[in-house]
Amino acid sequence: MMTIELDHQKKIPFYEQIYKYVRNEIKNGSLKKNEKLPSSRKLASHLEISRNTVDMAYAQLVSEGYIAAIPKRGYFVCELEEALPRQPLEDDWIEEEDEERNQYAIDFSPNGVDMDNFPYNQWRKLMKEVMITDNSELFQSGDPQGDREFRNVLRLYLHQSRGVNCQENQIIIGAGMDYLLLLLGMLLGNENKIAFENAVYPQAYKVFQSLGFQSERIPLDGQGMVVEDLERSLCSVAYVTPSHQYPTGIVMPINRRLKLLAWANQQEGRYIIEDDYDSEFRYQGRPIPALQGNDRKGNVIYLGTFSKGIAPAIRVSYMVLPQSLYKRFKEKFSFYSSTVSRIDQAVITRFMKEGYYERHLNRMRGIYKSKHDCLVNALKQFGSRISIFGESAGLHLLVQYHGEKKKEELLLFAKNQGIRVYPLADYQLEEGQGEPIFILGFARLSEEEIEKGISILRDIW
Amino acid sequence: MMTIELDHQKKIPFYEQIYKYVRNEIKNGSLKKNEKLPSSRKLASHLEISRNTVDMAYAQLVSEGYIAAIPKRGYFVCELEEALPRQPLEDDWIEEEDEERNQYAIDFSPNGVDMDNFPYNQWRKLMKEVMITDNSELFQSGDPQGDREFRNVLRLYLHQSRGVNCQENQIIIGAGMDYLLLLLGMLLGNENKIAFENAVYPQAYKVFQSLGFQSERIPLDGQGMVVEDLERSLCSVAYVTPSHQYPTGIVMPINRRLKLLAWANQQEGRYIIEDDYDSEFRYQGRPIPALQGNDRKGNVIYLGTFSKGIAPAIRVSYMVLPQSLYKRFKEKFSFYSSTVSRIDQAVITRFMKEGYYERHLNRMRGIYKSKHDCLVNALKQFGSRISIFGESAGLHLLVQYHGEKKKEELLLFAKNQGIRVYPLADYQLEEGQGEPIFILGFARLSEEEIEKGISILRDIW
Repeated sequence: MMTIELDHQKKIPFYEQIYKYVRNEIKNGSLKKNEKLPSSRKLASHLEISRNTVDMAYAQLVSEGYIAAIPKRGYFVCELEEALPRQPLEDDWIEEEDEERNQYAIDFSPNGVDMDNFPYNQWRKLMKEVMITDNSELFQSGDPQGDREFRNVLRLYLHQSRGVNCQENQIIIGAGMDYLLLLLGMLLGNENKIAFENAVYPQAYKVFQSLGFQSERIPLDGQGMVVEDLERSLCSVAYVTPSHQYPTGIVMPINRRLKLLAWANQQEGRYIIEDDYDSEFRYQGRPIPALQGNDRKGNVIYLGTFSKGIAPAIRVSYMVLPQSLYKRFKEKFSFYSSTVSRIDQAVITRFMKEGYYERHLNRMRGIYKSKHDCLVNALKQFGSRISIFGESAGLHLLVQYHGEKKKEELLLFAKNQGIRVYPLADYQLEEGQGEPIFILGFARLSEEEIEKGISILRDIW
Repeated sequence: MMTIELDHQKKIPFYEQIYKYVRNEIKNGSLKKNEKLPSSRKLASHLEISRNTVDMAYAQLVSEGYIAAIPKRGYFVCELEEALPRQPLEDDWIEEEDEERNQYAIDFSPNGVDMDNFPYNQWRKLMKEVMITDNSELFQSGDPQGDREFRNVLRLYLHQSRGVNCQENQIIIGAGMDYLLLLLGMLLGNENKIAFENAVYPQAYKVFQSLGFQSERIPLDGQGMVVEDLERSLCSVAYVTPSHQYPTGIVMPINRRLKLLAWANQQEGRYIIEDDYDSEFRYQGRPIPALQGNDRKGNVIYLGTFSKGIAPAIRVSYMVLPQSLYKRFKEKFSFYSSTVSRIDQAVITRFMKEGYYERHLNRMRGIYKSKHDCLVNALKQFGSRISIFGESAGLHLLVQYHGEKKKEELLLFAKNQGIRVYPLADYQLEEGQGEPIFILGFARLSEEEIEKGISILRDIW
């Protein structure tokens, strides 16, 4: 008879203690195959517990296949495949977290946004309105492309603010740009060769690379991607950032846009991917309208995100497909469930419909303009030792250094003072010739930090 | 001189009206290339507005490339590529929404969850605590695998509730199962052939198919996937649902699990994908532990989701990679940004840490058990005309019909009465022989609806 020392102190119920005991005995071979277990009546009386408790333990062992119940004969130990010996795990395989970020007191990162001025109260209020029992339908799975009301509000916004022409059916909501690029890559098929700008947004380049796409970096002139070089490249897809080239800040003028559209239209199956990543923020004049608005033949795929306008953490982006690709999407990929929380979709829908988004963008435009101007003013201390490019828009600008020091020296000097700047060379295929250029983002820094950072750089550069 | 009729009523600022007027004149060819525009001084005085307003309009036209400013000579119209003629969009390409869902008054769908009993108040409270300015760091982009604290809490939960052994580094958080399967497919590479259960969870099958995987459906016996057939299939990856086979409800006993592990261990590069989609809900005895807990050699990829335990709409799932695949993931795919909102991650972390999740699951287990029992009792009205399978766990069960009527007849009769049931055949490769089997989900129905639905079915079947 099995003697199981039941622990009356432990919170674990008796049936679970019995189940675990028997399971271990079987696993370690103390109970052999085909061995008969005591009947539940006998074991219960032996352990002075109720028979029901033993029955529960046995039932669990039966469901998991450790023992079998043979009618009128009782419970028998099943034959187990030889259990595999445990392989020791390497202890050292947890790698260290990247601590580099914290080494810098002042980080001119081009990523991130100012979250000190986010309308948390309004957002909480909308969240509260959405998170109610009456909305329980909203908590079931939703439209794979994103909820129709959200897409409709977004369509209006894109039309009014960006000049994008589309129906809400062409819009696909996804959890971040990388996800949408992944979906788009699968949709296009990696038999296409893809042209990137040089310098390039590295995430987009990496996504298409991970999907096995061949690619080529096309040079930029003062108006953006050089279409003659694109022609020569044998690429059938061009990835561009026409409203504010990332990271150089070039605005693609209408003529180059039309040339690019003409290129796409020359041959069946050519597409332009327009990444409109930070078009919300322009500090002079009106926003530059999207290239998609000039597309007459359905060659432009438009991509945008709420990462800059709301917050990077919420993971909501959107893609507008031309008709031909939308049809392919519906056939092949529309079964993929949506990657964006419907609660978030409902909150953003209200945030836009009730005018909060526009007000927030207007406010942030003021705040960013002030940080931008503060950075430009601070940089004037350098006099003719630097030139500034790509200003008046977005959340970063470019600084070219006209001194004796090399890029590596400048970076090291800055790092030693706890300041991080980003070399443009990291975004380029080949190291650019000539004087080094750095990217300076300002969204997350306060004006004091900007001034302090630049004043230190002036002293050490 | 251009005469622009400025509209004083409109809310559109004058500079924008001028900009649009000139842009249109250029686009429609009324202003020809190289034509000189009036100086801003002259135009301003002609229109009786301030010169600054005209300057702003001209600056915008310059940034967008419609006109060029030539120093000391003035503004000139740029040469535009021939604008593309507009292609008429087909009017009929908005397809109708799938209205089928609404045709049914009582839908025994196996998808969806009961959201009438969700702890909205607690969730709102946690959301409110997270959505504060002090947390502004949380609104920047986060760890691509998911936030470390969340993964840590999840690791503990998976260990205690599911017997999963892992470090938090092995966990990858993603926006839904489909996304994680997509990532996993890219990680494994489609040179692998993949074995599915027959019947199968259709979404998983479709994801791997869309990635170009070859696959084979392996028969099930009463213990799950038949390993001998798996051996013969030349597959190197097996996708299984051992705790509660979807949709048949079979529990894979320990012996079959060990056999499956031994299969994986026979050859380099073999993997088992364990989809543990609804293991939270078992109405007899303890939960069946995960297969991953028996894995000693790192052959099991474990997948789970909060879709059933919290809500399908929030899109949070997780994947536990064995060491070999984790290393590959870090090398090749860790640059993909996280697809899950950090706000949601923070809320779920607290929801779990503060014990709400466990309480919610316990409560829902009671509610679902009661619905389950109600369904089983109602089905007893059929007497020997049906048999029930796969009960005592999950959110659906299977009913086999032993009468004269054909599957199509039964479905049509049910549909005419506004009742939807789901044929098992839709989840199988080949139409099963013999008497038809239907899947009946009960999560979203009230007990009254369950009773009413079954009582109607009894009358018409």
